[in-house]
Amino acid sequence: MRALDLIIKKRDGRRLSFQEIDYLIQGYVSGAIPDYQISAFLMAVFLRGLDFSETRDLTRAMIRSGDTLDLTGIPGVKVDKHSTGGVGDKTTLILVPLVAAAGAAVVKMSGRALGHTGGTLDKLEAIPGFRVDLPFEEILGVARRTGAVLAGQTINLVPADKKIYALRDVTGTVDSLPLIASSIMSKKIAAGADRIVLDVKVGSGGFLPIVEQAQALGEMMAALGQEFDRKTVIILSSMVQPLGCAVGNALEVQEAVATLKGEGPADLTELCLVLGGEMLAAAGVTETPQLGRDRLQVLLEQGAGLEKLREIIIAQGGSTDIIDDPSLLPAAAQRIEVTAPHSGFIQEVDAREVGWVSLLLGAGRLCKEDTIDPAVGITVMKKIGDAVAAGEVLAVLHVNSTENLDEAKRRMSQAFTIGRKKPSLPPLIYDVIR
Amino acid sequence: MRALDLIIKKRDGRRLSFQEIDYLIQGYVSGAIPDYQISAFLMAVFLRGLDFSETRDLTRAMIRSGDTLDLTGIPGVKVDKHSTGGVGDKTTLILVPLVAAAGAAVVKMSGRALGHTGGTLDKLEAIPGFRVDLPFEEILGVARRTGAVLAGQTINLVPADKKIYALRDVTGTVDSLPLIASSIMSKKIAAGADRIVLDVKVGSGGFLPIVEQAQALGEMMAALGQEFDRKTVIILSSMVQPLGCAVGNALEVQEAVATLKGEGPADLTELCLVLGGEMLAAAGVTETPQLGRDRLQVLLEQGAGLEKLREIIIAQGGSTDIIDDPSLLPAAAQRIEVTAPHSGFIQEVDAREVGWVSLLLGAGRLCKEDTIDPAVGITVMKKIGDAVAAGEVLAVLHVNSTENLDEAKRRMSQAFTIGRKKPSLPPLIYDVIR
Repeated sequence: MRALDLIIKKRDGRRLSFQEIDYLIQGYVSGAIPDYQISAFLMAVFLRGLDFSETRDLTRAMIRSGDTLDLTGIPGVKVDKHSTGGVGDKTTLILVPLVAAAGAAVVKMSGRALGHTGGTLDKLEAIPGFRVDLPFEEILGVARRTGAVLAGQTINLVPADKKIYALRDVTGTVDSLPLIASSIMSKKIAAGADRIVLDVKVGSGGFLPIVEQAQALGEMMAALGQEFDRKTVIILSSMVQPLGCAVGNALEVQEAVATLKGEGPADLTELCLVLGGEMLAAAGVTETPQLGRDRLQVLLEQGAGLEKLREIIIAQGGSTDIIDDPSLLPAAAQRIEVTAPHSGFIQEVDAREVGWVSLLLGAGRLCKEDTIDPAVGITVMKKIGDAVAAGEVLAVLHVNSTENLDEAKRRMSQAFTIGRKKPSLPPLIYDVIR
Repeated sequence: MRALDLIIKKRDGRRLSFQEIDYLIQGYVSGAIPDYQISAFLMAVFLRGLDFSETRDLTRAMIRSGDTLDLTGIPGVKVDKHSTGGVGDKTTLILVPLVAAAGAAVVKMSGRALGHTGGTLDKLEAIPGFRVDLPFEEILGVARRTGAVLAGQTINLVPADKKIYALRDVTGTVDSLPLIASSIMSKKIAAGADRIVLDVKVGSGGFLPIVEQAQALGEMMAALGQEFDRKTVIILSSMVQPLGCAVGNALEVQEAVATLKGEGPADLTELCLVLGGEMLAAAGVTETPQLGRDRLQVLLEQGAGLEKLREIIIAQGGSTDIIDDPSLLPAAAQRIEVTAPHSGFIQEVDAREVGWVSLLLGAGRLCKEDTIDPAVGITVMKKIGDAVAAGEVLAVLHVNSTENLDEAKRRMSQAFTIGRKKPSLPPLIYDVIR
C-alpha cells in the first residue's frame, strides 16, 4: 500500500477501506507517512467527503492509534458527558457531582482552554490543591470511592487525533463533519464510558454556527455511538451568548458552586438539568430523561450535588473550604465596570467576543504554552432580553494587569448590542438526538 | 496575510489575487510556509481549479521566484522548443541544429531522464566530451557563434517549480491542467526565448493520455504565452508508440545523426519537419509553417543540419568523430533479440512499457540520484501496422548487465500486441494550437 495511491483514490471520490484508512492513520502516528501527504489527504476528505462506513472506519483507526480505558473495575453503568466547548460553560463542574449523587458513575476526562473557549481542567485548578493529573489507578480509585472523577488526559488516548487535529488547524480542514465526528467520538469511545451525552454548542460562540450543520453532526455521532455499542445522546444547545454569568476560571468555579446550592443563573441550571436528565436515562438510572431531570431537581434542592463535589474535591486533594467561603478562591486585584452607552434592551451578547476578551485578560490561551491567570475573567451582568438603563453595568472585568485592558474594555462594550425593542429570547435547547 | 486563510479561500472555491498567490509561492520557496500547508493548497487547487487569471498570476509568481534569462545579447528572434517528454523522443537533437541552420536562434535548456521518459542532457552526454553545464556567459557565447546552444539548467530558473513539482509528485496533485500549464510556461518564459513551440505528447507513453485534455492544456498554454508576450504554438503529437526506433542515450544520438543525414525513421523525420516548420514561422524566418517545413526539407537534404550539429558539438567541447563514425559512441556488450511469438500485424507498441524496459536496462532513472549507462537501450524493429512473422525480431535489447534482464525481456515482449488484421495507423499529429 502507498499513501500516494490512497490520496489519489480519495481525491477522485472513491471509497477507502478500513485497511486503507488504518494504514494512513497508523502511518501518520508512527511518522512513516509525512504531514504533507496527510494534509493533502485531509483536503481531499474535506472536499470529497467520507461516507458513513469510512467515517466509522476512521473512528476505529483513530481509537486503535492509542490506549483505551477499561472502566469495568468501576461498578454500574458509566456515563460520560462532553461539550464541544463554549464560553462560560461550567456544566461539567455541576453535572459530574450531581449525576453521581443520583447514582450513575461518571469518569470525566477534560481538556484545557484554547482560543476563545474555556477548559474544565483550568477551572478545576483554580481550586487550591485540586489535582487533575491522576494516574489511571487513581482515577479508578477515586471513581470507586465517590462514584465520579474529574481528571485530565494522563492516558495516551487517541494520539492520532492530537496529531491530525493540529494539522487540520493549520491546513483549513477543521470544518468537515466526518473529521469532527470521528475526532470527538474516537476520544469518547477510547475513554471507556458505556453511555455518552454530548452537548454540541450552536451559535456564534460555539462549535458550529448553524443548527442544521449541528444536527447533521449530531446524527452522525449518534450513529457512530451505535456502531461501537455506546449509546450516545446529542443535545444541541445555544451558544449565542455566554452560558450563565461568569467567564474565567475561579469565577466559574464560584458560579458552579452557587448553582449546586440552587442559586445559579437560570440558563445554566436549566441546561444542567436537561443534560443530567439525559445522562441518568442513558445510564438506566431513571426510565426517562424527564424522570432523571425530576430526580436531579430534588437532589439540587437537598444539596446532594454539593456534598458530592465536596467528596470529589477531597478525593483529588483539593481544599473544600472554597465551597463554604468562595472568597478563598483566587481573586483579581481590580474590578472594572463596563456600562451601557444608552438605554434599551439587550439584543445580543456576542459569546465569541466575550471569550476573546477573557483571553485578553489572561483567563485563556492562544497557544498551548500560554499560562493562565485563574483569578481574572468577566461577570456578565445583562443577558439577551434584559432591560438596561444608560450607565448601568453590562459587565464587570476582573483584572490583574493593565495589558490589553483598553482593547478588552472596548471589545467588551461592543459585544453588547442594545436596541429599543425587547427581543424574543433565543431557545436554550435546539434539539435532542437520541 | 496568512497562508491558512488563502488555503480556506481556495478550498471554498473563491478567486485568489496575484498578491495572494505570490505570497504563497515566495513563502514556500523561502521556507516561511511549510510544505504541509502548500500540499493542502495544491489539493484545493486540484479539486476547485484555478481560473485563467489565477493561472496567469501563478505563472508570474513562479517566474518571480528565480532568475530569468536575458537573451537580447543574441541577434535575431530566439525560438525555444520543448517536449513534455516521451519515449524515443530525440527531436531536440535534430531540431536545434536544423532550425538554427535555417536562420533562427535556438537557446535550448534541457532536462534529464526521469521515470519512463528520457532526457536530452543524458543523450548529449553520450557524445564523448560534450559539456552541457555551461555558465550563462558561455551559453550566450555558443549561441552567438553557432546560432544555437544545447545546455542544462545551470541558472536558477523557477526554483518554485522544482519545489512544488516534487511536492505534487507525492501528494496526488500532478494531473491538474492549471498547475501543469503554469509549471511548463513559467520555465519557458523564464528561459528568455521570444517564441515557444511546445510538443505535447498524447497517448499511453506521453504526458496526457487523452487528446481532449491535451487540447485544453494546449489552449491554456497558448493563452499564457500571449499574456506574457511570447507567441506560443502547441503541437499535440502521438506517443502511443515510441518515436523512431532507438530508445536509450547513445542509440538515440545515432538515430538523430542518421535523421540529419536524411536516413531517419519516417515518423521521427516527419515530426521534426512539423515542429521545425512551426519554429521557423513563429520566429518569422518563413511566412508560414508550410514554407518553414519546405525550407527544412531542403536543408536536410543538403546536410546543413548535420553541419550545424558539428559546429555545436565543437563549440561545447564534444568529439565530432561520432558523426562520421557512430561506432565511436558508447556501445553495449550484448545484443539480445526479442522475437514474435506468432505472426500477424503489430497492433500496439506500448510506449510506456518500452520506456520502463529501457530504465530496467540502465538507460534511465527512477530517482534523481541514479546513474545512467549511455550505451544500453532498445532498438524497436517493428511498429504499429507492420507485418511480422513468427520468430521475427520485434526489438533488440542493448545490454551491459544481466540484472533485470529476464523481466526486461518479458516486458519487452508483452509491450507488443500482435493481431490478425492490419490496424489503421494512428495519426502522428493530433492538433496544432497557435
